[in-house]
Amino acid sequence: MLRRVIVAVSVLGMALIIVRAGAADELLDRARTVFRPLPLQAATAADNPSTPEKIALGRVLYFEPRLSASGLISCQTCHNVGLGGVDGQATSVGHAWQRGPRNAPTVFNAALNAVQFWDGRAPDLGEQAKGPMQASVEMASEPARVVGVLESMPAYVEMFRAAFPGVANAVTFDNVAHAIEAFEATLLTPNSPFDRYLRGDAAALTAEHADGLRLFMDRGCSACHGGVNVGGTSYFRFGVAKVPSATVRPPDDKGRAAVTRASADDYVFRVPTLRNVAVTRPYFHSGAVWTLDESVRIMSEVQLGVPLTDRDATHITAFLGTLTGDAPRVEHPILPVSTAATPKPVLGTPGK
Amino acid sequence: MLRRVIVAVSVLGMALIIVRAGAADELLDRARTVFRPLPLQAATAADNPSTPEKIALGRVLYFEPRLSASGLISCQTCHNVGLGGVDGQATSVGHAWQRGPRNAPTVFNAALNAVQFWDGRAPDLGEQAKGPMQASVEMASEPARVVGVLESMPAYVEMFRAAFPGVANAVTFDNVAHAIEAFEATLLTPNSPFDRYLRGDAAALTAEHADGLRLFMDRGCSACHGGVNVGGTSYFRFGVAKVPSATVRPPDDKGRAAVTRASADDYVFRVPTLRNVAVTRPYFHSGAVWTLDESVRIMSEVQLGVPLTDRDATHITAFLGTLTGDAPRVEHPILPVSTAATPKPVLGTPGK
Repeated sequence: MLRRVIVAVSVLGMALIIVRAGAADELLDRARTVFRPLPLQAATAADNPSTPEKIALGRVLYFEPRLSASGLISCQTCHNVGLGGVDGQATSVGHAWQRGPRNAPTVFNAALNAVQFWDGRAPDLGEQAKGPMQASVEMASEPARVVGVLESMPAYVEMFRAAFPGVANAVTFDNVAHAIEAFEATLLTPNSPFDRYLRGDAAALTAEHADGLRLFMDRGCSACHGGVNVGGTSYFRFGVAKVPSATVRPPDDKGRAAVTRASADDYVFRVPTLRNVAVTRPYFHSGAVWTLDESVRIMSEVQLGVPLTDRDATHITAFLGTLTGDAPRVEHPILPVSTAATPKPVLGTPGK
Repeated sequence: MLRRVIVAVSVLGMALIIVRAGAADELLDRARTVFRPLPLQAATAADNPSTPEKIALGRVLYFEPRLSASGLISCQTCHNVGLGGVDGQATSVGHAWQRGPRNAPTVFNAALNAVQFWDGRAPDLGEQAKGPMQASVEMASEPARVVGVLESMPAYVEMFRAAFPGVANAVTFDNVAHAIEAFEATLLTPNSPFDRYLRGDAAALTAEHADGLRLFMDRGCSACHGGVNVGGTSYFRFGVAKVPSATVRPPDDKGRAAVTRASADDYVFRVPTLRNVAVTRPYFHSGAVWTLDESVRIMSEVQLGVPLTDRDATHITAFLGTLTGDAPRVEHPILPVSTAATPKPVLGTPGK
């Protein structure tokens, strides 16, 4: 009798393990149809082949505050490599302490987005880089000043020649953008728990994470937030099922409609990547929401029309935490030395 | 006859070499009584023993913008390790785009200064670090906020425990300052041409540099700018021989007199280090002068009462260029992640 009981219990235990393993395999199989692990190296843009010299120059330019009129603001200011590639502000603060209109998207893995900016107005990181340098509320410079600053320093001229060999005039605004793009393409965050899971390490996710992943797919989150960057590849209206609050979706910012001039694009935005989302608060293009849990609840309600239970919100939020990868290690560059020909900082009037 | 001429010429040549070598040795001997080469490692402050854990924490804090009210300004903002340890501004720009009253002194080799700040009001780098965090025109925070920010992030609490073991409460404002001091003490710039010269490498200085060094000592510059940091150890009135222009020495900034309340200290300042001076424009506490050559001429006139010839100014300026050492290589830290308890940025009103 005892033996029979033991056998029965063993069989039951085996069956449970098999069922659990089967469900786990099924979840992984399904996840693999929706997501892909992050590569260790971003693909080079076809029009901007990457070289060590170009990446090296791009790193220096990324940290170069003299690209701004004030000499105080660099790419790094709003896309801080120590802070998940963002600035932790609701919306960014730029020249003369002006607030920009939108939350700074992370530079990490940005090379894997199909388009750049919240409204997709730049096709790639090179075009993106040109925007903030010229925007009056960001770096407030202009191409001629940027080129003038760089040409005033022999060390920069040398670096541009090495990065763009065989051209008569290597120091151009386009090449500034190309070099920054090449550097930014190196800012990937591999080896997140979710990537390890996708590669076959079942132990990389806890039961709660796995349930969050299942919910994330079942509820339809992954319809927009899929692929290698868990987003970043499509446009969607923010407020498909329900109009978000005016704080979360300010009425004046109509998103992509300002680019296309089509009312069909009112409040349409590029879907953001969710990689490293747990470390890049605050959330949304408005930066109006400071916790990931609340953001998840808002998204379910306004995009999918379904309020989440506390349990489901917690599990999805826990799953999103598994998208945090290894932040890139970046040595702060030693910047070239200003010369008598280097333009002096222009601070402007505070707030203007 | 030919043989006699050759012998004579040879003897004359030998004699010239000996005279030159003798003069060179004399210059080096004299320089060694006035200056000392930079050590490779700064001495640890007696009250703040250095440990790898403390330095590691200090590096993170140095780059931590959340120590400021706005979340935008860190030590690195005004003392940029990529820009010679300064910000390239006439006077620094801080919270809400306010201009501070004085030019940011370099953080490089600052551990070797006898006192800190232009007016010497802090005895060491730890006390110095507390100033900008609280100054309303700089980081505009306060000790309770700083501690609150750090305590809100478990990774910081862990780092403080490792850096300050055996105390019940490691996260204190004093310990923030101690850790920053320990990191900053590592920011030395060894191996400048002048250091190599002092160590016996005669070829490290050109004839022009050597003449500049001789002039620097002959004219009396080295009376204040001597020692290991080529300055940084004494107080002097700015304008001993002649009152500088109101642009270069603004009448409202009376320097050390504001600390001591003694009119004898009117316009008295701590002598700045001249190490890396060629890469830390603009110059003086006012930041009013943008070239080193002009600064050298002004100093000779207002401190020593002697206008320099073009040739002498050029040679002294060339010598000062030999004080540029190897800038420290600093990896940008990955900062701890904000939590729901981390205070949000407070931007204030631009210009106020």
